[in-house]
Order: sequence, then structure tokens, then C-alpha cells
Amino acid sequence: MNARAVIDIVPLQERLGYTFKKPELLTQALTHRSHSKKNNERLEFLGDSVLNCVVAEMLYERYSDLDEGDLSRVRANLVKQQALYEIAQSLALSDYLRLGEGELKSGGFRRPSILADTLEAVTGAIFLDGGFDSAKDCLRKLYSLILQNVDPKTLGKDDKTLLQECLQSYQLPLPTYNVTGTSGAAHNQQFEVECLIPNLKITVKGEGASRRAAEQGAAKLALAAILKALPQESRKPKKTRAAKKKAAKQDAGEEQLNLKLKG
Amino acid sequence: MNARAVIDIVPLQERLGYTFKKPELLTQALTHRSHSKKNNERLEFLGDSVLNCVVAEMLYERYSDLDEGDLSRVRANLVKQQALYEIAQSLALSDYLRLGEGELKSGGFRRPSILADTLEAVTGAIFLDGGFDSAKDCLRKLYSLILQNVDPKTLGKDDKTLLQECLQSYQLPLPTYNVTGTSGAAHNQQFEVECLIPNLKITVKGEGASRRAAEQGAAKLALAAILKALPQESRKPKKTRAAKKKAAKQDAGEEQLNLKLKG
Repeated sequence: MNARAVIDIVPLQERLGYTFKKPELLTQALTHRSHSKKNNERLEFLGDSVLNCVVAEMLYERYSDLDEGDLSRVRANLVKQQALYEIAQSLALSDYLRLGEGELKSGGFRRPSILADTLEAVTGAIFLDGGFDSAKDCLRKLYSLILQNVDPKTLGKDDKTLLQECLQSYQLPLPTYNVTGTSGAAHNQQFEVECLIPNLKITVKGEGASRRAAEQGAAKLALAAILKALPQESRKPKKTRAAKKKAAKQDAGEEQLNLKLKG
Repeated sequence: MNARAVIDIVPLQERLGYTFKKPELLTQALTHRSHSKKNNERLEFLGDSVLNCVVAEMLYERYSDLDEGDLSRVRANLVKQQALYEIAQSLALSDYLRLGEGELKSGGFRRPSILADTLEAVTGAIFLDGGFDSAKDCLRKLYSLILQNVDPKTLGKDDKTLLQECLQSYQLPLPTYNVTGTSGAAHNQQFEVECLIPNLKITVKGEGASRRAAEQGAAKLALAAILKALPQESRKPKKTRAAKKKAAKQDAGEEQLNLKLKG
């Protein structure tokens, strides 16, 4: 028993916009395995799939021009731990968690994995209590603000990919990456990589603990340099026949840059 | 245009147990990307998540004693390509596929990946047309026979895991695996591995194109040898305090062996 054994779930239900017929399902969804045997792990299994399905439907409806690869990428980013953690925080889920002594003492109620898993379990509980449409209504509300700020063309793409797509949209050759230096002991090396875009006279250098990380850093700087180099007017890429085939991707080119560079 | 351009979908709807309000959704679900631009890829994205969710719910209800790890393992096996391919065959989906010329000529209508993907797309189409419960009703029927023949304790487990669990249930030490020989050229090696269970005086040898494969082969033979070595009466494992903690797993021990060895 701990001080949090009795929890008033009414405010949480209000935030969820859903009132349970069987409140014990919500209580179970809030119960971590460290607390008791009747915990939220099976509900988490169920809720994970409900969440995936509801988000898939939202994206399918919202982005009628996105292909299945882009839909998968966007969904993966909307259901990943960090995204669920942020939603869980907006619900103040940590105030309602039922944790065992050990987890309580070690601050389990702040742990992103526990909070994300609990949100999935709560989704599973709503699904069991009120059916698919109840879970859908609830998640639609929770995701509405997030979806407003999503750029489906860039979400979840790394800087090298964004740079490549940007250059392709201007029909420019791909950048070249060269390792220009390494430092530090073998187990703690730092890499320096340059990114060259001769047509735009851009040479930038990135650093990182791996070659890959250094390349990403250089790509990010190159994207910033392109934004600076190209006058505002010419930033809209020209459309050829080939380019038009990827019209949707091109149209988002400028927003891509803005999003990544302001972020 | 090909000879299959006009297809009577009525028999398929009967087999699915669902009649579309918008039959064009079913037609789209049956359209491979090689056939036309308006194809089934986005429906497949949606249907995949609906399928996962419905199967998760079925398993959650049916196996109230399975933990989330086992539920995930069983689901993974019920929604994998081979399982969906078999369901697609039971629906004769290949008679309804709309393929491009190239795919038609190369026998695309027989390809497991195309048929499995199409089943997902059909699921997505039912979901869009009639909602979650319609998709659920349809999938419940398609999976009912499969679920009757599933052993949730063994489905998807490999022979080494089954052997280990079997020995643990009898409180016997784990088996030892030794590579006893290799043959063939470097790019085409064959491995021979022995599996030793001293307490049962079992020594068996397995072969395979990798050490791992040879170990699995040896484990399979060892399981067969255990069945033979133990008299029928003593096959029910003894339960200690520790053993009782995994009671559910133990109880299925004998069925595990039977299932694997008869299969």
C-alpha cells in the first residue's frame, strides 16, 4: 500500500473526454506491474494496436495524397514513445499512476516509457469499455493539436534525406560526404565530415561520435546554407515533367527547410 | 486492359460474409499497383492495422491467462505473411486480383506476398465501408478455424526454446550444444551440431547450413527422443513452488511436444 492507493479518477476522465462504465478498467490501466499482479500489461498490448489503428485511420483520411510509405513513416512518429509521453503529460497521467514502492522511490512516475505504456493501456481500457469508436473519439481529441503542427512530408525524416530531397527538387546533383578528420581514443572517437555541394558552392563540416552522426550534422548545416544562399524568390523549385511526378514532395520543399531550421 | 478487367465480386462477398455499400472499395482493394494508379496500397496500410487490432482483441478475450509477451508472439504468427496467404487462398482471392500485364504473365496471382497484402487491403476496405465491427465480424469468421488449432503456448516458438522449456518443466539442466563438424566450401558450409542431455542419456546430432540451423535440428531430435525416453505416465511434470509460478507454461508441456513432433 502506498499513499496513492486511492485516486480520484474523475478529473482524468474529464481530460480524456470519456466516462468509464467500468471504472475498474481505468484503475487497472493505471496500475504498473511493480504495484500488483492485476496490472496494465495486457491492456497495453491491446491498446497499442488500437492506437496504431486509430492513428492509421486519421492519417488515411487526412492525407489522401500520401502513399503508404509516407503514411507508415508519419504514423511511426506519432505513436513512438516520445509522442505518447507528451500526450501522457498533457493528461497529467503521472498523478494517477499506481506504482510499487521501488518505482515510486526511483521516480517511475516521471519515466517516459512508463507513461507512454500507461497511455496505451488507458486506450485499451477505453476500447474494452466503450468500443472502438469511443477510443477513436478520445484519441482524435488528444491528437488534434499535434496533427495541426505535423508536416507529413518531413516528419521523421533525417537531415541527409531532407537535403537530398531538397537538391533533387532543384534538379541539382547529390551532395558528397568526406571524412576529414578523427580524434580521440578508439572507444571515444569524434568524426569530422565535410558535405560538399559544388553547384551551390557550399562546403560545411559536421562533427559527431560516429561517421553517420557527423554526416547528419553536416547535412543540417548544408540545409541552412541553402536557405541562406538562395534568394527568397527562387526558392520555389522549377517543375519539369520528371519533377512533376513528385509534385507533392516538391511543394513541401520550402516548409521542410523552415521546419527543420527553425526547430 | 486485361481479360480480368470485369470481375463478379458477389461470390467473394459471400465468402467474406460482408456486402459492400460501396463495391468500388472492394474493387480497389483487389487492384495491385501493377494494374493502375488507383490501387490497394493505401488500403493495405489501413487494413494491416485493423487486422492487428482485431486479432489482438480476439487473443485478449480468448486467452485471459496469457501475458503480453505471449500475446504478442501469438499475434505475430497469426498475422504473418504465410498465415494471411492461407486465409487469402481459402477465399480464392487470386481469382479476383486485378494485376498488370507483367504480373499476370509472371504468375503474380499465386505470389504469397501479393495475396497477403490484398487480404489486408480487403480488410481495410471493409473497415472503411462498414466500420470496425464489420471488419471484426468478418475476420472472426476467417480466423475461427485457425484459432481452434492454435496452441498459444507453442505457436511461433523454435525447437531450442521448446526443448529448454520442456527440460525446465522437469527441473532438468539445460542441454549443451557442440559443433562436431563442418564440411563444404567456405560459401556453402554444412554444420553438424550435437545436443547433449546427460540426465536423460540423450545425444543427438543435427545438420544445417548454419550453426544456428544445425542447433535447431538437433533440438528437434532431442525433443523427439525425450518423448520416446519418458514413459507416458511420468510425462506430467512435477510442480514445485518455483515451477508453479509458471504453471500455465508447464501444463502445456505435453501438448507442446505432441504438436511439434506430429507436425
